[in-house]
Amino acid sequence: MTTKELEIQIRQKKSFLCIGLDVDLHKIPSHLLTFDDPIFEFNKSIIDATHHLCVAYKPNTAFYEAYGIKGWQSLKKTIDYLNEFYPEFYTIADAKRGDIGNTSSMYAKAFFEDLGFDSVTVAPYMGKDSVEPFLAFPDKHTILLALTSNEGAFDFQTKKIDKNELYKQVLETSKTWKNSENLMYVVGATKADYFKEIRKIVPNSFLLVPGVGAQGGKLEDVCEFGLNSQIGLLINSSREIIYASSGKDFAEKAQEQAIRLQLAMEKILS
Amino acid sequence: MTTKELEIQIRQKKSFLCIGLDVDLHKIPSHLLTFDDPIFEFNKSIIDATHHLCVAYKPNTAFYEAYGIKGWQSLKKTIDYLNEFYPEFYTIADAKRGDIGNTSSMYAKAFFEDLGFDSVTVAPYMGKDSVEPFLAFPDKHTILLALTSNEGAFDFQTKKIDKNELYKQVLETSKTWKNSENLMYVVGATKADYFKEIRKIVPNSFLLVPGVGAQGGKLEDVCEFGLNSQIGLLINSSREIIYASSGKDFAEKAQEQAIRLQLAMEKILS
Repeated sequence: MTTKELEIQIRQKKSFLCIGLDVDLHKIPSHLLTFDDPIFEFNKSIIDATHHLCVAYKPNTAFYEAYGIKGWQSLKKTIDYLNEFYPEFYTIADAKRGDIGNTSSMYAKAFFEDLGFDSVTVAPYMGKDSVEPFLAFPDKHTILLALTSNEGAFDFQTKKIDKNELYKQVLETSKTWKNSENLMYVVGATKADYFKEIRKIVPNSFLLVPGVGAQGGKLEDVCEFGLNSQIGLLINSSREIIYASSGKDFAEKAQEQAIRLQLAMEKILS
Repeated sequence: MTTKELEIQIRQKKSFLCIGLDVDLHKIPSHLLTFDDPIFEFNKSIIDATHHLCVAYKPNTAFYEAYGIKGWQSLKKTIDYLNEFYPEFYTIADAKRGDIGNTSSMYAKAFFEDLGFDSVTVAPYMGKDSVEPFLAFPDKHTILLALTSNEGAFDFQTKKIDKNELYKQVLETSKTWKNSENLMYVVGATKADYFKEIRKIVPNSFLLVPGVGAQGGKLEDVCEFGLNSQIGLLINSSREIIYASSGKDFAEKAQEQAIRLQLAMEKILS
């Protein structure tokens, strides 16, 4: 999917909400545990209940890998379900991969070809030749970690290299890489103050923004400096939506939370 | 496995060789492609032919994920085979993971519990709370990327924060994290000049060293400053060993390459 198509989806749905499918068997309603694939059943219900309210889904691969082969199967079934029944959706594999060139090519193959995601999150620590193999795929996006939503972001990302913080260096440097038009960036909602600075460096890029809700970030704060003429934001919410209830009404309650966020976004977009 | 047990293995085998199981279906002997699981068959043959010459095996997860569920099954079969028939081996999941706290816990569960690896490689970009969940597992090691073997290492890792390069900052800072005694570090053999500096910061840690052979790093150069009283090095070789031949003699040729490296290590150790 191109960013233009993503923008069209956003304007049609009046939503730039991304729902994180971080499914933990200890947190999903217990009645689902009798199914052969509880994770997929959970995801299917969440997707069916929220698809008109959001534009993207983002499974975090850790939550699937933790269950081994069975987890990987749940991930595959989830993305296949999305690609079959909701092909207009933008899909993000939140995998935070990155390795030397030929190895990154294998990861790109895994997420773009084998699983069929539109995008994948990638860590920048290993530099250019660890990211460019992802960027080589046309109409696929590489979402580079810039400034993450966690406390540990202050360990290295905000440390100054010469006069520029590391995350700014990552933004600047990545713009010089081949096919950099296929880049998006992760910027945490918990660091809303930074969006003004970030938009000076990447005014036109889409930013994937985790950390709204459970982690404390505020939607309005992010939008104030994060929005651009193409919208340019995908706001992710995971736990707040998918775990809104641990009862049989989990999908209904997830929908309510998604409506709340969609309405807030509609207000901002108008 | 503890580092003391690893050291004992090294002294017994007179080898600190780690073999990287980065299996690409396009590169393995074609006669294996008729097997139900060619990747596992390949690994099994390599392991059986080289187990007396090395102390560790390191599958890079990208090469398995690229083949989807089937690939993940090959990875599981490989680690199960090692844990069943060669339980004395040190196993490394070269996965380069790292995410916010609760997510890193899921990755740790995936590699330490579900798959049963002794260690996993982790990227430091997201800082303390992305690494400590891995460190919480007793007798398991977290191998943090410090200075990698690729060209892109110069993009950020060697850039100076105040007066210290980023990779040094990573080494220094990581020593303050909880359970830091469970840390090892990735340092590329292609950057042998840096080992002297690195050993000043982490004199006692084990270093996993990729990049010998195909990538151009020299064993002797690395050992000059890398070795410590506990040996403290695991030298990885992947392509040079496992793809020594693409014919039916692939395991025999892999053994020859492994012998060559083991003998060089024996000489250095004496």
